[in-house]
Amino acid sequence: MDALLEQLRAGLPAEALITDAEVTASYAHDMASFCDAGAPAVVVLPRTVEEVQHVMRTATALRVPVVPQGARTGLSGAANASDGCIVLSLVKMDRILEISTVDRIAVVEPGVINATLSRAVNEHGLCYPPDPSSWETCTIGGNIGTASGGLCCVKYGVTAEYVLGLEVVLADGRLLNTGRRTAKGVAGYDLTRLIVGSEGSLGIVVKAVLALRPRPPQQLALAAEFPSATAACDAVCRIMERGHTPSLLELMDRTTVRAVNATASMGLPESTEALLLCAFDTPDPAADLAAVGALCREAGATEVVPAESAAESELLLQARRLSLPAMETLKPATMIDDVCVPRSRLGAMIEGTAAIAEKFGLTIGVVAHAGDGNTHPVVCFDHTDADESRRARESFDEIMALGLGLGGTITGEHGVGVLKREWLARELGEVGVELQRGIKAAFDPLGLLNPGKLF
Amino acid sequence: MDALLEQLRAGLPAEALITDAEVTASYAHDMASFCDAGAPAVVVLPRTVEEVQHVMRTATALRVPVVPQGARTGLSGAANASDGCIVLSLVKMDRILEISTVDRIAVVEPGVINATLSRAVNEHGLCYPPDPSSWETCTIGGNIGTASGGLCCVKYGVTAEYVLGLEVVLADGRLLNTGRRTAKGVAGYDLTRLIVGSEGSLGIVVKAVLALRPRPPQQLALAAEFPSATAACDAVCRIMERGHTPSLLELMDRTTVRAVNATASMGLPESTEALLLCAFDTPDPAADLAAVGALCREAGATEVVPAESAAESELLLQARRLSLPAMETLKPATMIDDVCVPRSRLGAMIEGTAAIAEKFGLTIGVVAHAGDGNTHPVVCFDHTDADESRRARESFDEIMALGLGLGGTITGEHGVGVLKREWLARELGEVGVELQRGIKAAFDPLGLLNPGKLF
Repeated sequence: MDALLEQLRAGLPAEALITDAEVTASYAHDMASFCDAGAPAVVVLPRTVEEVQHVMRTATALRVPVVPQGARTGLSGAANASDGCIVLSLVKMDRILEISTVDRIAVVEPGVINATLSRAVNEHGLCYPPDPSSWETCTIGGNIGTASGGLCCVKYGVTAEYVLGLEVVLADGRLLNTGRRTAKGVAGYDLTRLIVGSEGSLGIVVKAVLALRPRPPQQLALAAEFPSATAACDAVCRIMERGHTPSLLELMDRTTVRAVNATASMGLPESTEALLLCAFDTPDPAADLAAVGALCREAGATEVVPAESAAESELLLQARRLSLPAMETLKPATMIDDVCVPRSRLGAMIEGTAAIAEKFGLTIGVVAHAGDGNTHPVVCFDHTDADESRRARESFDEIMALGLGLGGTITGEHGVGVLKREWLARELGEVGVELQRGIKAAFDPLGLLNPGKLF
Repeated sequence: MDALLEQLRAGLPAEALITDAEVTASYAHDMASFCDAGAPAVVVLPRTVEEVQHVMRTATALRVPVVPQGARTGLSGAANASDGCIVLSLVKMDRILEISTVDRIAVVEPGVINATLSRAVNEHGLCYPPDPSSWETCTIGGNIGTASGGLCCVKYGVTAEYVLGLEVVLADGRLLNTGRRTAKGVAGYDLTRLIVGSEGSLGIVVKAVLALRPRPPQQLALAAEFPSATAACDAVCRIMERGHTPSLLELMDRTTVRAVNATASMGLPESTEALLLCAFDTPDPAADLAAVGALCREAGATEVVPAESAAESELLLQARRLSLPAMETLKPATMIDDVCVPRSRLGAMIEGTAAIAEKFGLTIGVVAHAGDGNTHPVVCFDHTDADESRRARESFDEIMALGLGLGGTITGEHGVGVLKREWLARELGEVGVELQRGIKAAFDPLGLLNPGKLF
């Protein structure tokens, strides 16, 4: 321990090191429930690539595990500390280094906040689409680590699709450059994409070249009420089958709608069984919404309310964004799942989840990126009640099993981390896990980077 | 050799094996110049996953290298045989297994022809965008192996962005499933993306889940004449900077335009120094073309001719597609390069290429996916003239060095193969190549899959 601090101090300014146990304990975990976290030996907050290299060289020399962190808004425990580790927080490396309107790229450090980047590129008439719910606080480095998604994905895709190139400090402190600044490039294996979503287990991202898009027109949304979640899912299938490209297509179930109303009196219809929100940022969004509204009615919608202005649309989106905080008020604790199924199976997924809730006697609200088939069942429970906690955990597992059975994945956008580690092999199979371990060994032969995560 | 044939025969029908030396020789190489090719021991044409597994088990047991092939339309020698290898041609595995309009996916075998798939999904109102020039003959498996691009990439991206999941036979014959059928998914390292573009060096793709898009409206094109390639590149920058999203943005230089005229009397303007083709498949393409036409004039275009119909647009595209065949008539041999630079450096790339042509006393025509900064300088030479051949090869190398110097990549879409193997390390650096080798070893410890390619 003394040797560790001494060696770290040799290459870091004093203010980059935190050793006070109370403070380091506050860096122990991200926002996931049911995930073990250890006590870090030290928290380091480097400001330069060289400082990160120094940390990794020290860690390698002394065989100390390193847990990289962004804003710790993750939902899988991927940023949780292990006992005696170095927590390597990248939040101080927060410069936007370049924005190019001709090349449509931004070059950023990992600690840049998602919303800060979004606003900065907006001023140049550009857009960085990935918008996880935590976008006001989460970092680009964290987004890259977890390959995070958001509301925009149904039209614009996930973080992975916006990462063109990376500068990465390896476990032994060497610097790796991956990818490119160009629109296209196929020189060798795609190491960039391998590192995106690797949850800090292959290297420390210290710089990223991100693709940008022209800023789209402001989106216009509608809300449609359905007599059942099944009918709402049917509408989702019709919308996608007819070739529409909404910029947002979200579903809130009855539990979610009521929780949001109770929290913020947004005036959502209390009686609805499922609310579908759909938006377009096309040249003529009103026409697109009219077509989608008709499809919703065909699928059984009892009410279709198009927003008449961008401001009204924004209110609907706020209701959606409140879903998780609102459900957190229902019970002392929540576990948020993240199963993604083919959208044709969305109805079966939501019905199956309701059956699981009933089986375990639990409240499980579902909010979903419906256009992507990506559901977020939120298991609400009292963590001080041992039996309820057990049932919560069991229902969480059954939801994953249900998703796999429907041809889906255990995680659409939150990642594996600690939370779903035991489930990864069930999805990937033995051969897949063996190869993943082989890749890990090629990058990090001593196993120092974020041990105990993923597999 | 006898043992090899005997063991192969034990698990393959007779018609799946070709041993006639004259016929196997015809499988020795793809369409790249200047690439060594050996003599295969045998060509196998399996029809099932089990047959592919049998081939790989046999290869592993006997330590025989395997070279996977599609239609051999590649341009980097990545499909070239090595002496005594098994050529594993996937062209007989050519079934489209599924098309889902709700999930917007297709599930295909690797031997499906790109154009066959495109037409099949079109009938369902869907679109599979990747469109390499060879799309009428090349296979999806080959497209995946080389991560190929095409004309549509400026709006719709490359093959890699459309591959959601893969079924892969590993070097030892085991089956690996990667990725997903869902719109999103982040369970573990992205092995799908790792295999796309790996040029058959990590495994044999036997099935692919591909993402589809709604079929866009037919595109409308314009042609703009410029007094210099620099002015045309300036127009490209203005178009992209103003936030336009053309479905095609191609540049043909003076050499290319004249070659096309000489081949097919397409009536292109002989006097032009550079021709820019731009198309939109938006709801109002005429309006978008008018805006782009104005930007072209600002950049110095002497003539802007918008097509008045889809048929006229198609004629312009045909002229573009004729570029390579037309340049092949200029000299007995050609080498096509594939350097991609940030689009802001496109002008410098094209000027630099002209200087290289002059320095070596060669004809080098340039056709470019201008919107992506992806140039195809075509070095025309007489391969029976030793000195001209040497100059051709040297100019080819200088073009790559120029591209790297401008912040670009040695290959935007054709891949590394044999042709650019010596250049890969210059782009990736030592650390990058070391990690790529580590990954290769994790997948193929005996080094049997497509040896001598990439690195």
